[in-house]
Amino acid sequence: MVDTNSNSPSSIAFNAHHSPVGAFASFTLGYPGASGGFGLELGKPADQHIFIGAESAKAAGTFELLPFFGEMENEQDQFVLDSQGDTVRKARVSAVPWSAVTRRFRPCTDSWSAGDLTFTVFSPAWPLPDPADGDPDALKTRLLPAVFAELTLDNRQGDRDRRVFFGYQPDNHAHHIRENWNLGEEGICSLCDGSHYGVATAHPGSGTALHFDLQTILGERDRERFHFGNATTGIVDWIAPAGERVTVPLVIGFHRAGVVTSGLACQYFYTRYFKTLDEVLQYGVDHFEIYKQAAVEMDAQWDSAELSESQRFHIAHSIRSYYGSTQLLDHQGSPLWVINEGEYRMMNTLDLTADQLFFELRQNPWTTRNVLDHYLRRYSYRDEVVFPGETEAHPGGLSFCHDMGVMNCFTRPGTSCYELSGLKGCFSYMTHEELVNWSCCAAAYCHSTGDRTWRAQNVDVFEACLDSLVNRDHPVPGSRTGIMKLDSTRTRGGAEITTYDSLDESLGQSRGNTYLAVKTWATYLAFESLFLTEGREDLVAVCRDQANRVMQSLLKAVRSDGTIPAVLEGDHSSVIIPIIEGLVFLRFTGREDVLKEDSPYAPLVAALKTHFIAVLKPGVCLFEDGAWKLSSTSINSWLSKIYLCQYVARDILGITGPAVEAAADKAHQAWLTGHPNAYWAWGDQFYSGDLKGSKYYPRGVTSCLWLPEPQVGSLS
Amino acid sequence: MVDTNSNSPSSIAFNAHHSPVGAFASFTLGYPGASGGFGLELGKPADQHIFIGAESAKAAGTFELLPFFGEMENEQDQFVLDSQGDTVRKARVSAVPWSAVTRRFRPCTDSWSAGDLTFTVFSPAWPLPDPADGDPDALKTRLLPAVFAELTLDNRQGDRDRRVFFGYQPDNHAHHIRENWNLGEEGICSLCDGSHYGVATAHPGSGTALHFDLQTILGERDRERFHFGNATTGIVDWIAPAGERVTVPLVIGFHRAGVVTSGLACQYFYTRYFKTLDEVLQYGVDHFEIYKQAAVEMDAQWDSAELSESQRFHIAHSIRSYYGSTQLLDHQGSPLWVINEGEYRMMNTLDLTADQLFFELRQNPWTTRNVLDHYLRRYSYRDEVVFPGETEAHPGGLSFCHDMGVMNCFTRPGTSCYELSGLKGCFSYMTHEELVNWSCCAAAYCHSTGDRTWRAQNVDVFEACLDSLVNRDHPVPGSRTGIMKLDSTRTRGGAEITTYDSLDESLGQSRGNTYLAVKTWATYLAFESLFLTEGREDLVAVCRDQANRVMQSLLKAVRSDGTIPAVLEGDHSSVIIPIIEGLVFLRFTGREDVLKEDSPYAPLVAALKTHFIAVLKPGVCLFEDGAWKLSSTSINSWLSKIYLCQYVARDILGITGPAVEAAADKAHQAWLTGHPNAYWAWGDQFYSGDLKGSKYYPRGVTSCLWLPEPQVGSLS
Repeated sequence: MVDTNSNSPSSIAFNAHHSPVGAFASFTLGYPGASGGFGLELGKPADQHIFIGAESAKAAGTFELLPFFGEMENEQDQFVLDSQGDTVRKARVSAVPWSAVTRRFRPCTDSWSAGDLTFTVFSPAWPLPDPADGDPDALKTRLLPAVFAELTLDNRQGDRDRRVFFGYQPDNHAHHIRENWNLGEEGICSLCDGSHYGVATAHPGSGTALHFDLQTILGERDRERFHFGNATTGIVDWIAPAGERVTVPLVIGFHRAGVVTSGLACQYFYTRYFKTLDEVLQYGVDHFEIYKQAAVEMDAQWDSAELSESQRFHIAHSIRSYYGSTQLLDHQGSPLWVINEGEYRMMNTLDLTADQLFFELRQNPWTTRNVLDHYLRRYSYRDEVVFPGETEAHPGGLSFCHDMGVMNCFTRPGTSCYELSGLKGCFSYMTHEELVNWSCCAAAYCHSTGDRTWRAQNVDVFEACLDSLVNRDHPVPGSRTGIMKLDSTRTRGGAEITTYDSLDESLGQSRGNTYLAVKTWATYLAFESLFLTEGREDLVAVCRDQANRVMQSLLKAVRSDGTIPAVLEGDHSSVIIPIIEGLVFLRFTGREDVLKEDSPYAPLVAALKTHFIAVLKPGVCLFEDGAWKLSSTSINSWLSKIYLCQYVARDILGITGPAVEAAADKAHQAWLTGHPNAYWAWGDQFYSGDLKGSKYYPRGVTSCLWLPEPQVGSLS
Repeated sequence: MVDTNSNSPSSIAFNAHHSPVGAFASFTLGYPGASGGFGLELGKPADQHIFIGAESAKAAGTFELLPFFGEMENEQDQFVLDSQGDTVRKARVSAVPWSAVTRRFRPCTDSWSAGDLTFTVFSPAWPLPDPADGDPDALKTRLLPAVFAELTLDNRQGDRDRRVFFGYQPDNHAHHIRENWNLGEEGICSLCDGSHYGVATAHPGSGTALHFDLQTILGERDRERFHFGNATTGIVDWIAPAGERVTVPLVIGFHRAGVVTSGLACQYFYTRYFKTLDEVLQYGVDHFEIYKQAAVEMDAQWDSAELSESQRFHIAHSIRSYYGSTQLLDHQGSPLWVINEGEYRMMNTLDLTADQLFFELRQNPWTTRNVLDHYLRRYSYRDEVVFPGETEAHPGGLSFCHDMGVMNCFTRPGTSCYELSGLKGCFSYMTHEELVNWSCCAAAYCHSTGDRTWRAQNVDVFEACLDSLVNRDHPVPGSRTGIMKLDSTRTRGGAEITTYDSLDESLGQSRGNTYLAVKTWATYLAFESLFLTEGREDLVAVCRDQANRVMQSLLKAVRSDGTIPAVLEGDHSSVIIPIIEGLVFLRFTGREDVLKEDSPYAPLVAALKTHFIAVLKPGVCLFEDGAWKLSSTSINSWLSKIYLCQYVARDILGITGPAVEAAADKAHQAWLTGHPNAYWAWGDQFYSGDLKGSKYYPRGVTSCLWLPEPQVGSLS
């Protein structure tokens, strides 16, 4: 939570999502200039001028606005080719200086104040019932593709009436701004862009006014001229009478009808309940208080958690970016949950699913099952494997694609949009990584939910996963070390990569990678537990054997300084933080026993702790500002993974202190709120603090691991 | 028709629409660079790189393309943040020089040749049966939202196989390029952007290949890597074997499902027959020959008309831009015909309807009735009128809005998106102009079609129109002069304007305007005829009386040099060409009797002819290059109105010679094909030859008045 009245804008001038759940929609706001607005299915902020302001208390006829607009295009010249002698009165508008703005930033409310003006957005980040067996009324309420706002002008000290307004000017002509006169009969005042998004209020006396620019709208005295259909700018406005404090509720709605995806033809699930944008706005107006109350109550729950201000900032920001990426589709009557990958817009990227898992298991556990089922049914494949430099194929097995498609286009069954053959770096296959990811997610889902039916249905799949994992170690049982040594034949002469695709080989290559080794080890341990429950003693033995081999291989690799190399192949000098990452799955798959001092695996846990302490040092895996550097040999560091490893370090390995807590959190907050990074809301890939990739991204919800268990701020 | 192999690109390097009817879609192509492509509901070309080319005959592995692409963005850097050591082979591509390109440009085929490569687009501009009673099979066939192309490589002289391709790279990320694998089972190879547009072929051996850029696609040898889902560029490709001439048919399809408009919720009419883009492409592939044959046959009909090459160019270009603006909607089961106004995207602008009328009465007469009915039902109003500078309201009457909305947003009933009160120039009301336009269109529709039912149904409306016209002359019968003297109260202190909104007062102001006077005179004459048929002698007398008063007023205004001033109010020195414009309606409403030498109106016709001859002179109403200057006091001249006045001068007033024929046509062609004008396909408003407004515009079909009667190239 940011709650400051700083003279420097940098701490509060950042974009954040304000999103419903499942609508792939975001009313993004907070960065200076024309940087936010109504975004539907975008991989970036909408770059609209957003006008939130009121007539000045000091100078009648001039207007002061929150600083969310830039230089404004005036299209009139396009039509007025000759001078016609008609004069237009343009009002003076100015932005409140950032030094006069206060922001209160929480997961479900976001509020800006400047003088007597306050604008607050409410976007309850509530869980979504399982459409198969959840409360249908709650499902409808929560799927409404809208967020809510209040605009208050405290004119109690004022001696004259003042005009207050909320409006916008889109940056392009894909849609057209219009007064939504259809809702007028319902007593609702509404301004929309085509049938895709808009704002509505039932505040008595409110109206719409449209023209080419805000200055003309505010300068115009004749309301008859407010209906201009060729307008490119519009506002909803009303009067705050002298001596009164007026708060106006606003519904900010989104809607996209019909089939929205290709490959698989799906619609938005919410269209079952809301056929048109008008229905969305009407419902929002009628139920405003429910949404506002939910947002306020959820925030109060969050406040009760014992977290630092900086931690709260990271969590709130991450959840917002995640919700803006959610898309609940309806495919032939069945729900299909999709998380869109920020600026890249890849769909349900499986290595993100494995990180977002922890949040979903708190929030919407059924979505994990939904995604896993869809992967198994449509985006899994079977391969063979080869040793590097060789051509002889050995048995491989089941694995999963990197993703299900991109930009609303589902790929062919058994293929991702990302993976290409013949490569050793970016865009190569992630066969082993995704096999581990699907397996860990499945095990965590079973453990967290106790869903015995699903577990029993999939025992054969788990067995196939185990078989496939073992085959990627070595075709000869006696030669197995628990470490991946063979690449998928799908790479066709290339080599597999991990989710850390854009880092150097310390994290990017899969074979011999110790990050992947520990995650694989956790998978064996999770499967051991699963197969034990299912009475498959034969497979339990395999799991134990492989888990032990991973441990022995890693312990053998420990160097004199206590560190473990990033890659157990060739002569790699890198050391990495994420070698500890896989430990998180021990907790979420019911294997906390492994963490005990008397566990047979205690030596590995101790070695990982020693390694971590050894590398978390300036010049190794710490940047100068105290931020974490995931690899000693790359300046590319990812916040989502840092959050995760912070959790492992603190809550699993028991390592505390500023370097893993306050100092790191503040450095990372400074990255996110620095300019121009802050334009992108939450972002992941920073190069020494500069946001370079994975912008506008959902993956940061690994920060929710920091929440106490049982979850405070459970959002339910 | 342009059929040249000039060394100068200027004569053939112009964009043109290639459009189905009623789909508001255009495959625009012809201007250099990334200037065309797949446009759906756009007010401008799509600015895509279009790749049409083949492996060079001289250098294997290098590729030569038609010059329809620009510098290409390579997105790979966005992903490859670190160097991964993976090398990509990029092929060399180059554009054929314009000097080596030949273009054959006709209304329904457009063909470019360079060396042994030929690319031809077929877009039959056929009439559309009335959905109410036309042939349903023809309706389905003609509404298919697709155009067709053939790409030929003549490799008969070649000694090795050569790769040939058609592809594109969109300029933005609104949609996503993808291989359309769904159609693969049908033996169709297809490349699409989401579910909105794409290309397909059933040519055996064709495939798709995708990557970030064309150079990589063409450099890649491994077809397994052609499926890249994250691609931003794609091609459909095949091999032309050595010694063979290979022609591949391509279907270029568009589709937009569901409700596409707001205000009135409408879908595309074609969605009755084609639910998805895949159905469009499949149907197109299955019926390719029908469409190709239709285009070729229609062109042959056109060729049979006795027209100059330049006239053919204007007609072909105009029809193409018109078809790209057509949109047949389905509103609650009824057809709704919309012409979108080019770059402005206003819908069914009534003063354009009155110019496009002549084309529609040949082509799709029912659409005129459809638009007139919709205006009457929903976009008409009743007003009062005032003298300038006064406030006392006098009876006004029925009139019609300027338009029905903009950018797929229908305005409130009784309002346009354009008109605003309180103005004297652009965006003011066009009450008198639109009253005359609706009346002329209605009379012309009745006369051309002989639709007695509709005429009889609307006698009361015609009477209301007549009453309204007379009231705008003068409230006191004895003071009437036939000339408009009162403005609508809707102007609220402003003044009405004509369709020539952006010209100076010579054409822009309505009161006293002689352009409007002659058009009003033609309306009275048309109504006289209508009421005579309907046995309303009382109204016939009014019409005659008013028509005579118009004539007397105009004759009184003739000056010693034979010219008539542009405005019969104050001291206006301007003279204008469009004073003759209204004469066109005499012919189309069955009043050619008026043109005879023994007609009581012969003095006015003679005066108009004298006026026209007097003003069509360099320095008055001719630009130096021989182009027409509509007003002596404005450099803003409109091609659509020039075409119309050329027709009136030649075919009604009998004035011939280079100034009204070849010299003018060539000068106007040079305007359209000059750079950068030529980017905008057909455009209307030129400032001394520079296209400044009304770009990408439908209004040019006034050129079809030049076609012989009965229509050669009737397109049926």
